[in-house]
Amino acid sequence: MFSTHYLRKAFTLNSKRFSSTISGLDASKVKVTKSQVLKPLVANKDLVFGHTFTDHMITADWNEEKGWLAPEIRPYENLSLAPSTVVFHYASECFEGMKAYKDKKGNIRLFRPDMNMARMNRSTARIALPQFDGDELLKLIGEYTKMDSRWIPNERGYSLYLRPTMIGTQEALGVNPPSNAKLFVIGCPVGPYYKTGFAAIKLMATTEYVRAWPRGTGDAKIGGNYAPGLLPQRLAAARGSQQNLWLFGDDHQLTEVGAMNLFLLWKNESNELELVTPPLDGSILPGVTRDSILSLAREWNEFKVTERKLTMPELREAIKQGRVKEVFGAGTACIVSPIKTIEYLGEDLAIPLDPYDSTSQAGPYTKRFSDEIMDIQYGDKESPWSVVV
Amino acid sequence: MFSTHYLRKAFTLNSKRFSSTISGLDASKVKVTKSQVLKPLVANKDLVFGHTFTDHMITADWNEEKGWLAPEIRPYENLSLAPSTVVFHYASECFEGMKAYKDKKGNIRLFRPDMNMARMNRSTARIALPQFDGDELLKLIGEYTKMDSRWIPNERGYSLYLRPTMIGTQEALGVNPPSNAKLFVIGCPVGPYYKTGFAAIKLMATTEYVRAWPRGTGDAKIGGNYAPGLLPQRLAAARGSQQNLWLFGDDHQLTEVGAMNLFLLWKNESNELELVTPPLDGSILPGVTRDSILSLAREWNEFKVTERKLTMPELREAIKQGRVKEVFGAGTACIVSPIKTIEYLGEDLAIPLDPYDSTSQAGPYTKRFSDEIMDIQYGDKESPWSVVV
Repeated sequence: MFSTHYLRKAFTLNSKRFSSTISGLDASKVKVTKSQVLKPLVANKDLVFGHTFTDHMITADWNEEKGWLAPEIRPYENLSLAPSTVVFHYASECFEGMKAYKDKKGNIRLFRPDMNMARMNRSTARIALPQFDGDELLKLIGEYTKMDSRWIPNERGYSLYLRPTMIGTQEALGVNPPSNAKLFVIGCPVGPYYKTGFAAIKLMATTEYVRAWPRGTGDAKIGGNYAPGLLPQRLAAARGSQQNLWLFGDDHQLTEVGAMNLFLLWKNESNELELVTPPLDGSILPGVTRDSILSLAREWNEFKVTERKLTMPELREAIKQGRVKEVFGAGTACIVSPIKTIEYLGEDLAIPLDPYDSTSQAGPYTKRFSDEIMDIQYGDKESPWSVVV
Repeated sequence: MFSTHYLRKAFTLNSKRFSSTISGLDASKVKVTKSQVLKPLVANKDLVFGHTFTDHMITADWNEEKGWLAPEIRPYENLSLAPSTVVFHYASECFEGMKAYKDKKGNIRLFRPDMNMARMNRSTARIALPQFDGDELLKLIGEYTKMDSRWIPNERGYSLYLRPTMIGTQEALGVNPPSNAKLFVIGCPVGPYYKTGFAAIKLMATTEYVRAWPRGTGDAKIGGNYAPGLLPQRLAAARGSQQNLWLFGDDHQLTEVGAMNLFLLWKNESNELELVTPPLDGSILPGVTRDSILSLAREWNEFKVTERKLTMPELREAIKQGRVKEVFGAGTACIVSPIKTIEYLGEDLAIPLDPYDSTSQAGPYTKRFSDEIMDIQYGDKESPWSVVV
């Protein structure tokens, strides 16, 4: 996998940064400053994804001489940065998306947070930002979520979305690896990602633009992967789709959806029931929800589970032959999002939802994946994936 | 060309933004606030590229309801932005690089600034940031450079580097086109881009990473194109190269250098003297210096001038056969940068510099391009390319 390869390279080049003379991120050094004025909470029904933020944030600064300075939990406030700061010019930025849930006992839970920490360190390595100790950041996130726990909704379907972010902060226009960086984590209470709630969405397959390429950055969660998707998304929205579907190659291979990984449950060419998702070939984001769905499906052992390439013409043919049972997206923001239509080359391809209930917005397995993951996330089902902070 | 295509798309989608109810960028509305304390100048010899900034900056804010608000020329100071601002997460950012020169009469001159304005509007279109009237921004830049004219060095080889930048400023984590944006221009006095001055540099051909691809964003000057280049650049630096050379495809086509376009003067397969640069196929930055060199070469009419694909194996063979005469990079920051070595698959390929002068750091044509462009930039040679502000 490319990611492993460049990670090794980055570690080799950065080895001096792990020497004893510079400091690693250390949660025990945290300086806590409480906000003097707490903001009013927003009712769950009024939440818009990513618009409301809690009272505090985590920050930690890094420079190449000293390493990580003492982290802080401090009031949520603006960042003050020179206009020459590298993040504004060369997109030295990467992020994670994760959620904190409140269980019935009032405990705060994270879902597989170690995967976010590992992925974020792969992202930073790919764009020459510094590495950090993920366990230390998780300790800070634990403290932060406890401090802002009144912001974590306790209604199922709602949670506190957490956004760890790292940006390059050196003030210089030369195109060079950042000598300074800032890590911060902000949190916002959220409900369903789409305004439509758990309703099936429409995708538009994008044939004019390509998201990622072999030996590019498609498997890293870096800012630069997102801005180029805004125009295709706007084009999709103008045609009534909630998201665009990224294809690759002249044969129009399925890769991923605007902000989600993609799954297909179908009767394959050999008439086997099979769950398919595109493989992690270096150009696809290795989603935590994606990995969780694959694990659950393999545990259930009720159908074949395959990571493999699949093209739009193959999918179109299967849809027309009635072999496609369910299609859904998967990601931290939406968890599981049923898909009812894919527009491809001007044609609307209709995907079945629930064959037993015409009012349902999701197929039976789509719904089961969603329920099972949410049961774990909200602590209703015991699982090592759910970590009490 | 892709750029034209997506530009048309963007304009169609944004047509309501050009209606009479919203404002365009208007230089006549500028609000000027002078800095109370002027900073001490830095001697030319002490300038490091992109480290020293002048006393003022241009700013202009945009929102989708009102369009462009009145621009300002104000003291150079930090930007204050919420940590949720879209530029930190999804790399909603693009920029230009241009220079202001002082001629012998003390006039301030820009070099083909209309090309920067046009390219910046293509970049903003590609990532769903707003369009602006380039003539109006040039008026503002004229006023700004006059106000900070003491920062424009009058020594040849030195200039005031200008960095127009646009960032998305909406405070929301949903992946949506920015509803708010900020345009700013900062300026810094600069000398030669490389510490080595006008000395020939070494490139390392990058085979592990790809910069751009068809239907991607390689022809837009957006931040996201740059952060992924930092690791390859660090790898190149670790092996003694100043920049990396980006290749594309299994046949290792030459595309561009880290921060420059690439030119080759050689005896081609038909034994004709030919200047070659990779074509603008949508994955290469359409450089202003690149275009200027092509124009000059066609005007001179002393050798064939061709935009065409060329692979590293072809170049390697030509070097070994002694057919390669000169190789150089071209860009606003360095203008022209002679290249003496390309490391490719572990082998150092030596490029000739001046066959008549072993102490020279550039081939005769490389030097002539540099001299002629600088003559125009500094107003020593009359040309419509040089615009007095």
